[in-house]
Amino acid sequence: MASYTNLDSAKSFKELAGHAPPPDLAALIDPDRVAICEIPMGGGLSFNYAASPVDGDCIAILSRLAEEQEMVEKFRLLAGGEMMNTGEKRLVLHHLCRGELAGPVVRDGRDFGAFYSGELAKVRTFVESVHSGKILGSTGRRFETVVQIGIGGSDLGPRALYLALERWSKAQGRLRMQARFISNVDPDDADNVLASLDLASSLFILVSKSGTTQETLANETLVRARLSGHGLDPSKHMVAVTSETSPLAKSPRYLASFFMDDYIGGRYSSTSAVGGAVLSLALGFETFSEFLAGAHEEDLLALQRDPLRNPALLDALIGVYERNVLGMGATAVLPYAESLSRFPAHLQQLDMESNGKRVNRRGEAIAYKTGPLVLGEPGTNGQHSFYQLLHQGTDIIPLQFIGFCENQISPDVLCEGSTSREKLNANLAAQIVAFSCGKGDTNANKHFPGGRPSTLIHGQKLDARALGALLAHYENKVVFQGFAWNINSFDQEGVQLGKLLAKKVLEGADGALASYATLLGLGRK
Amino acid sequence: MASYTNLDSAKSFKELAGHAPPPDLAALIDPDRVAICEIPMGGGLSFNYAASPVDGDCIAILSRLAEEQEMVEKFRLLAGGEMMNTGEKRLVLHHLCRGELAGPVVRDGRDFGAFYSGELAKVRTFVESVHSGKILGSTGRRFETVVQIGIGGSDLGPRALYLALERWSKAQGRLRMQARFISNVDPDDADNVLASLDLASSLFILVSKSGTTQETLANETLVRARLSGHGLDPSKHMVAVTSETSPLAKSPRYLASFFMDDYIGGRYSSTSAVGGAVLSLALGFETFSEFLAGAHEEDLLALQRDPLRNPALLDALIGVYERNVLGMGATAVLPYAESLSRFPAHLQQLDMESNGKRVNRRGEAIAYKTGPLVLGEPGTNGQHSFYQLLHQGTDIIPLQFIGFCENQISPDVLCEGSTSREKLNANLAAQIVAFSCGKGDTNANKHFPGGRPSTLIHGQKLDARALGALLAHYENKVVFQGFAWNINSFDQEGVQLGKLLAKKVLEGADGALASYATLLGLGRK
Repeated sequence: MASYTNLDSAKSFKELAGHAPPPDLAALIDPDRVAICEIPMGGGLSFNYAASPVDGDCIAILSRLAEEQEMVEKFRLLAGGEMMNTGEKRLVLHHLCRGELAGPVVRDGRDFGAFYSGELAKVRTFVESVHSGKILGSTGRRFETVVQIGIGGSDLGPRALYLALERWSKAQGRLRMQARFISNVDPDDADNVLASLDLASSLFILVSKSGTTQETLANETLVRARLSGHGLDPSKHMVAVTSETSPLAKSPRYLASFFMDDYIGGRYSSTSAVGGAVLSLALGFETFSEFLAGAHEEDLLALQRDPLRNPALLDALIGVYERNVLGMGATAVLPYAESLSRFPAHLQQLDMESNGKRVNRRGEAIAYKTGPLVLGEPGTNGQHSFYQLLHQGTDIIPLQFIGFCENQISPDVLCEGSTSREKLNANLAAQIVAFSCGKGDTNANKHFPGGRPSTLIHGQKLDARALGALLAHYENKVVFQGFAWNINSFDQEGVQLGKLLAKKVLEGADGALASYATLLGLGRK
Repeated sequence: MASYTNLDSAKSFKELAGHAPPPDLAALIDPDRVAICEIPMGGGLSFNYAASPVDGDCIAILSRLAEEQEMVEKFRLLAGGEMMNTGEKRLVLHHLCRGELAGPVVRDGRDFGAFYSGELAKVRTFVESVHSGKILGSTGRRFETVVQIGIGGSDLGPRALYLALERWSKAQGRLRMQARFISNVDPDDADNVLASLDLASSLFILVSKSGTTQETLANETLVRARLSGHGLDPSKHMVAVTSETSPLAKSPRYLASFFMDDYIGGRYSSTSAVGGAVLSLALGFETFSEFLAGAHEEDLLALQRDPLRNPALLDALIGVYERNVLGMGATAVLPYAESLSRFPAHLQQLDMESNGKRVNRRGEAIAYKTGPLVLGEPGTNGQHSFYQLLHQGTDIIPLQFIGFCENQISPDVLCEGSTSREKLNANLAAQIVAFSCGKGDTNANKHFPGGRPSTLIHGQKLDARALGALLAHYENKVVFQGFAWNINSFDQEGVQLGKLLAKKVLEGADGALASYATLLGLGRK
């Protein structure tokens, strides 16, 4: 049994708050420190924290904090099937989709690892039948495009991951189908995607755990109407990813159904059938398997008690220090890889929906800050956009850089003596040093204060295995921070009120709600 | 002559800080307030601030603050040609691209309004020649796709605006060419776009004011190599948008050149030839003209001294109150319109690059917060992502909602008794009320504290005129906030150090810079 106590009751947290001010980054960073602060991750990646405001003493206190909050112990309990989602009384089992971490998890006669593997095997069989042409569209055409219909966790993760590996898969000769995504209930979204498709060769995946997600059902209706309007049989063009108890399960309206369950939260579901179906169809099952293997490698590191061997734990601890001791309110995720263009949007959900909480696991108000704002865009684009504020604004925002040595596919060109890849990576190295060390200038407007901390995740090339490790790193970091803050990172009660009030509007509301609805053209008919 | 003084020296600012705590939003909001707090904008839009934490007294003090900081007076001076960009000693004339606000601006014999109009007329003539087939590709093919090569202000604004109007233009029968964008120096970006193109029918627009932007020149090299490799003559497939003094001006390497100048900052350049060339080619000159007209309508409102008749000024003042008195550190822009998917990314640059400053106009350090973090994604998608933190996180983030009564194009469907449009707008109305009013619950985990302020910009339909007004609103809001904070919103010295250090890396750096470069595969050859 672990004990669940608030961050501010930890002795080491008080010690941390009383610790000497953070070291001057400019004085701290030198080649030795850059070399020493390298920690191996899964998937061939490394985590470098040389530009974080933590010296040896600080790391030592953070390690004690990890022990006091029993962070690794709780991670092990979670992996072993403890009911970590206390609010909803659910286990948290997304790790099992990529491998066991603490033995089998069996409840009421169900072996969950075997269940998730079984669903993955079903996905594989289906995918092979589609790729081989055994399963065809209702007019006998082969499927060439797969369209995921889902929102939130059923959209952001799979979409970001597809974009991340689309071109790499193409270079490997593995790109089997093009993938598209429909999420927003704004009908302009679905129409935009549908207008660009050859419907007769398109396969749709409807993803909703509950089978009742308003946006997703509305988009399904829209898609079915369009298919029928083109003389196609919707039931031959659509599969479902849902829970076994949902209205969508085992319905003749779908070619096939693949299952997850309540123990895999939406934002943690990319490695379940939610990501598995679309990614395997588009990029091949082999690619998805390598992606899972990379995630599992990274998960195994999360069992290490020593933060210097557990990059997600260390990243989490540094983040807590920056948030709760140094008072920094946000985190910017800055991948120097265009293919990771939507990865920050996925992390935005993962982090902010998990840890944007104001009560602890027992539902008591807490007196310290929890999850930060998360934002980000790929570099070098961001340098020409919001970096001005990051360098010279009045708030300090910790930065999480991501970079790779090699291109995913492209032939490169030489321009003014260097390739585009060299320019990209030179800029990344330059930014880390510019942010941390700054530069004096007698003109205050050209003065860079420095002291703006960052970490760097880097690897040789962004492939499926590296991407799996990258995703798992952030998932595990978020979970570790939830343990430090003593909050439940697995529910999302904050989204309920809006749903309730939207229903009221559609049924006919009064008061201010009706006034706003009227401004938006509702109820004017 | 206006006088330039810091925010914290204003008498009304001290008064504001001493003002009674903000009213309880739940008690404040009722149908009367929603009706009263409507302010007309340009382009048929309205600004509603009913869910902002400001009562009549607070608005009165904010109005005095606007007077004390001479915010409208300074806007008028800016429009009339005062050197507002003091750091770089430049005028700020982007408003002139859409019409005069304070008479002609003439310096050293040049009438800038006439100059910008002249360039727009050149764009129009060129666009008409392309659309009519008078100008063809080097193999005699008509141009069907236009590709903008630019970064930062030459990319984010035009890209967001194109996406905003692409489908509306299609519905109007105005969509003339498809537009694509290449920005990142990561060669995977350009290769990804080029792989999807028919090069013989593609026209490229190279956009760089200085003509020396590293990323843009590298991408130009890459594109020219690809064109030549396909037996095409690059000089017949490329135009330039640049300044008259740049190395790109009037070069035989381009079919045509269109000019802007140093008085139009990159992030404010969407209404100049930077946006004009690509948007007119893709959406037609008529669409771009309507867009400019909408922006001009909105600009005219920015000359009003009364904040209740000047929505950008009021929005700016409420933002300053939230930032500097209530201590809120970020702003979320939440358009309930899928076509505005990249509009928040443009505002992120516009706002954070303009006002992420720590010194005043005279280069003196200031003691108060300036520009906030800006982030955002379209609704309802965001509701299934980061809204959890917005509702129940430990920080309060002011929200800027945007919504429209009608779809841009799509046929809609009925699902469970309502259309997708009705669901979308019901959710928007619901969120405003949920954030501001909250909901009590004995279970603290299900308790919504409320008190989370928002504003709403709304209109009948997102068309070209409405989009122009929307863009100008935010541009003018940012400028007004810069006047309140007494900072220069028009330079970006914070981006220089990174450029300098990247150059060092490419030339062979030492120390920590070299260590990071080595981690990223540089210098290992």
